[in-house]
Amino acid sequence: MHKVIFDTDPGVDDAMALLFLHRHPEIDLLGVTTVFGNVPLELTTRNAQFLHREWNISAPISIGAESTLDPSRRDDRAASVVHGADGLGNIGVPQTIDWPLDSRPAYQFIIETVRANPGEVTLVAVGRMTNLALALRADPGIAGLVKEVVVMGGAFDVIGNVTPAAEANIHGDPEAADVLFTAPWKVTIAGLDVTMKTIMTAEYLDVMVKSGDQPVQLLSDLSQYYIDFYKSRVGIAGMAVHDSTACVYLVRPDLFTLRSGAVRVVCGGIADGATIQSPDHGRKFTGSPWDGHPSQRVCTDVRSEEVLEVIRAALVEGRHSIAV
Amino acid sequence: MHKVIFDTDPGVDDAMALLFLHRHPEIDLLGVTTVFGNVPLELTTRNAQFLHREWNISAPISIGAESTLDPSRRDDRAASVVHGADGLGNIGVPQTIDWPLDSRPAYQFIIETVRANPGEVTLVAVGRMTNLALALRADPGIAGLVKEVVVMGGAFDVIGNVTPAAEANIHGDPEAADVLFTAPWKVTIAGLDVTMKTIMTAEYLDVMVKSGDQPVQLLSDLSQYYIDFYKSRVGIAGMAVHDSTACVYLVRPDLFTLRSGAVRVVCGGIADGATIQSPDHGRKFTGSPWDGHPSQRVCTDVRSEEVLEVIRAALVEGRHSIAV
Repeated sequence: MHKVIFDTDPGVDDAMALLFLHRHPEIDLLGVTTVFGNVPLELTTRNAQFLHREWNISAPISIGAESTLDPSRRDDRAASVVHGADGLGNIGVPQTIDWPLDSRPAYQFIIETVRANPGEVTLVAVGRMTNLALALRADPGIAGLVKEVVVMGGAFDVIGNVTPAAEANIHGDPEAADVLFTAPWKVTIAGLDVTMKTIMTAEYLDVMVKSGDQPVQLLSDLSQYYIDFYKSRVGIAGMAVHDSTACVYLVRPDLFTLRSGAVRVVCGGIADGATIQSPDHGRKFTGSPWDGHPSQRVCTDVRSEEVLEVIRAALVEGRHSIAV
Repeated sequence: MHKVIFDTDPGVDDAMALLFLHRHPEIDLLGVTTVFGNVPLELTTRNAQFLHREWNISAPISIGAESTLDPSRRDDRAASVVHGADGLGNIGVPQTIDWPLDSRPAYQFIIETVRANPGEVTLVAVGRMTNLALALRADPGIAGLVKEVVVMGGAFDVIGNVTPAAEANIHGDPEAADVLFTAPWKVTIAGLDVTMKTIMTAEYLDVMVKSGDQPVQLLSDLSQYYIDFYKSRVGIAGMAVHDSTACVYLVRPDLFTLRSGAVRVVCGGIADGATIQSPDHGRKFTGSPWDGHPSQRVCTDVRSEEVLEVIRAALVEGRHSIAV
């Protein structure tokens, strides 16, 4: 079993990833930590509560950061155009949801959960990396106790999605991402290089709905706005299932091609939020800002058809019984 | 006929490109402008004189910039490890060469030659872009009079060669490259995305020598150090013929896959010298530093076997008779 803390800013594709983590038989979801991003923190937390209630997910929810690690930086790129004003495709989520919240701030929840399960916890981060950077800052020792960090973020050999240089999760808090990537733990990064190849069509989702239950129907309902965005603004017939792709890495790493090497994040300037790796194999660089940082793993390619099938199987056939 | 000014910092692969431009039957070499880069300006100019004398090239040589466009920037990355301390593979080029030099500085030579041949001149820039940026600064009107600018430089969807982020020609003077790419003229960029796919093996060069004349023998002699560098430091059996690849674009653009979109250069920070394009097709970005800049063309793929054959044919079978 993979013990997972899911750090998220729901978010439409976050919702699919949450249901995937909840339903996949090899994953034990220890907790969900929220962060600002796709929409403001108040809404991402409310959306996590809503999804937990609708899907009867018992894992605790802990409230995370509402702004960037560097307080002098402004992130005004909330992606309501992508996810809807409510962050869940404008399906009419109630303003407040009566569902319990953990009393600890997210970074504290992460620290305590990691320390309670030394060497066993995988952190899956699919929003701004602020909570993880704050946890490292408060307790650097956790780096040696985490099993792995799996990140959805970045654009390595491909164009970004917020600017030509940068992907949204990294662009929203570049300093936090640079802290995360340069810390002495094992990080695997699924960025746009693989997630933009993993497109779920509306038809694929429809087939899942037909064989699925009410939670899958809700997932489909809240995804329609997002699918429309991809069709009208990106010119793609379907939605990139960014966050679920990163989650599939947990259980099927064999579906991904990895490249190892130190990863840094550009902070400031026109390439603000760009992610750049110095590969371990190939030309050697000396005296570069990548020197001395740990080698991390970047996903450069993916068997996307099989990733979609892993998602489908977990959502439709997952062993967790759902009482709705 | 393509009327060409060759802006260069010889340099081993510059030497091959020079012989290519001199010998290709569809190219009229109007002049050569030198710039600092692979080695200091004094040596790149001396090397141009040496190659002109050895190969009896009558096109004038004009001396260009010895340092970056922004005088506060230092470029201390002279690539003698790649090209040899003399810039020509340590073959023993005499300290000074008795060969005439144009009296005008390079930027002035460029301006006057362009204005004397309105709409007809292609600028082929394979070193730091400083001379072209100085020409634009002194006479912005030339932008509308140049037929095309063909650049060897940059690393778009691939890793750089000076740092993980940046290619040498751009990294050596990022501000100049950004001026060049954002000017209102037609720029086509052949960077590492295509030049690192265009590898000439020592065996290929040997075959050329057997069927070629004395100039090809000299080219082979001065290339051996460079081939050794690629073998020992890059792990490639052969040499990337960067500058010749850009020159082949002139006569065989059909061998290249192009992507259009504004191109900017990162100036400063860890990604200093990185080249980033905002493609015209695909996701639309708004409020980005690419807005309002002209669409340029980036080579994203190449039929490299055929490029090598075009180079071979020009060097071995080119129509210019060489009196050595």
